[in-house]
Amino acid sequence: MSQPADPDSRNFGTVAIVGVGLIGGSIAMALKGRGTARSVIGVGRSASRLQEARDRGIIDEGLLELSVAAYRSDLLVFCTPVDRIAAGVREAAAACRPGTLITDAGSVKGSICRDLSEELPSGVEFVGAHPLAGSEKQGFEFAEATLFEDRVCVVTPVTTTSPRALERVSSFWKSLGATLVEMPPEAHDRSLGETSHLPHLVAAALAATLQSGNRALAASGFRDTTRIASGDPDLWSAILLANRGEVLASLTRFGESLERLRVALEERDSRALTDVLRSAKENRESVAVSADCGHKK
Amino acid sequence: MSQPADPDSRNFGTVAIVGVGLIGGSIAMALKGRGTARSVIGVGRSASRLQEARDRGIIDEGLLELSVAAYRSDLLVFCTPVDRIAAGVREAAAACRPGTLITDAGSVKGSICRDLSEELPSGVEFVGAHPLAGSEKQGFEFAEATLFEDRVCVVTPVTTTSPRALERVSSFWKSLGATLVEMPPEAHDRSLGETSHLPHLVAAALAATLQSGNRALAASGFRDTTRIASGDPDLWSAILLANRGEVLASLTRFGESLERLRVALEERDSRALTDVLRSAKENRESVAVSADCGHKK
Repeated sequence: MSQPADPDSRNFGTVAIVGVGLIGGSIAMALKGRGTARSVIGVGRSASRLQEARDRGIIDEGLLELSVAAYRSDLLVFCTPVDRIAAGVREAAAACRPGTLITDAGSVKGSICRDLSEELPSGVEFVGAHPLAGSEKQGFEFAEATLFEDRVCVVTPVTTTSPRALERVSSFWKSLGATLVEMPPEAHDRSLGETSHLPHLVAAALAATLQSGNRALAASGFRDTTRIASGDPDLWSAILLANRGEVLASLTRFGESLERLRVALEERDSRALTDVLRSAKENRESVAVSADCGHKK
Repeated sequence: MSQPADPDSRNFGTVAIVGVGLIGGSIAMALKGRGTARSVIGVGRSASRLQEARDRGIIDEGLLELSVAAYRSDLLVFCTPVDRIAAGVREAAAACRPGTLITDAGSVKGSICRDLSEELPSGVEFVGAHPLAGSEKQGFEFAEATLFEDRVCVVTPVTTTSPRALERVSSFWKSLGATLVEMPPEAHDRSLGETSHLPHLVAAALAATLQSGNRALAASGFRDTTRIASGDPDLWSAILLANRGEVLASLTRFGESLERLRVALEERDSRALTDVLRSAKENRESVAVSADCGHKK
């Protein structure tokens, strides 16, 4: 006999989205599209933006007061810049009812999870997460209900995380269509330092190098390689600083790869040059294979 | 009264495509699609590949003997790897009838144009070109008749280039839909060193840096930034070596940009970090604007 579905497990009650931008707006739209929230509250700093998000049907209600939203919510999802998440979670937690869960979508996890692992009022739990989705664009105008479908979402429990909170937050991200990967916050930051934060620095350095007279000769190779350099400078500065140690370590490894290429070129060593290019191509193609199912243009 | 169209000016006669890959195949398809060649001969080293290109209707005829094709053609277009273009052009020129024109699609122009500026038999002229189109893929399987539409094609005359040859080669590339930019070969190499060859090195170094355990966490940012690292290692090794001086100079400038970011991060200087990220974003967006009409995904 099959188990009857528990209606509660498929509905997250009243969900507050703190920061209704590309990511927050997409979460709100996915929740509403799938009918997995009783109500979606958007929390922000601009009444007119919240009103616009409401007019577009992205959220059910907009609130400027985080504590009011926190008290009324069963689940809060922080989609604010990484340097504002921990303080926001603490503020919200002080106003939450016992049993409320909090998660986030920040690109760095170590500092946030450390800050929040033991400080919250009894009965309120935070479980960090990072959905690997988004783009260089900003604002709920670019939000999509399908943004998380078939994308990886990293969930980063710590030793004090309760099994119930982990299970519930995991099922929340899964309910948006994401594939879950669970790892400690520090491991997340080590990996993402290499796969996301380092590429951002490198793309920015490449874009910054372009001389204005050469713009007309920049074709699709340049454009793709530097696409992420269009990301918001303040958001990215906060991310890079929050994961400073790992980003600097990745940058050192990148410098070694680049130096091998430079020396081969300097010494006109065609074989050495081709060897590095070949191993780069193999690496790139291994990523293409493992990520193809989750990649959308 | 309008000028009657000169049928000759719209038809390039018998055109030989030397190297029927992504670029050569696309040129052949564009010529046949637009009816601007009497006949398209493909020249290659593999009889079976040429037969397949013929079976697909990409070329009218395949020849293994460059000199035979050269003798029968009015225009030859070299789409071979950059380190084989100059020698191929010399071999072809020795077999051409007077009045034959030769152009190429090589990514580096200085060395090729220097090599060929004064050596060809009387009546045969070479005018270098570089259509800024293509992708990391290889083979005529990926060819498209529309590849050059609204893309920039750089044409690089030298002091000995006759006005007739320049006009005719320019109108050939225009006939494929390209927007022409004329500049000396050395200026081309300086610009493309920065906009194409440097990004290739950087993307390759980034792909080479990725540790295998992190592959599953590489999302669209990593994928776009390293897409061009999937290019053919031999082709790219030849391009980088042929433009070695300019690529090394661009690499030095890139190193300075990256070092500014590294120092800002090292010193936790949020303002300096944001400043470089902001100027990178502005640069990137200026390219997006100036290149949008020519960019296809």
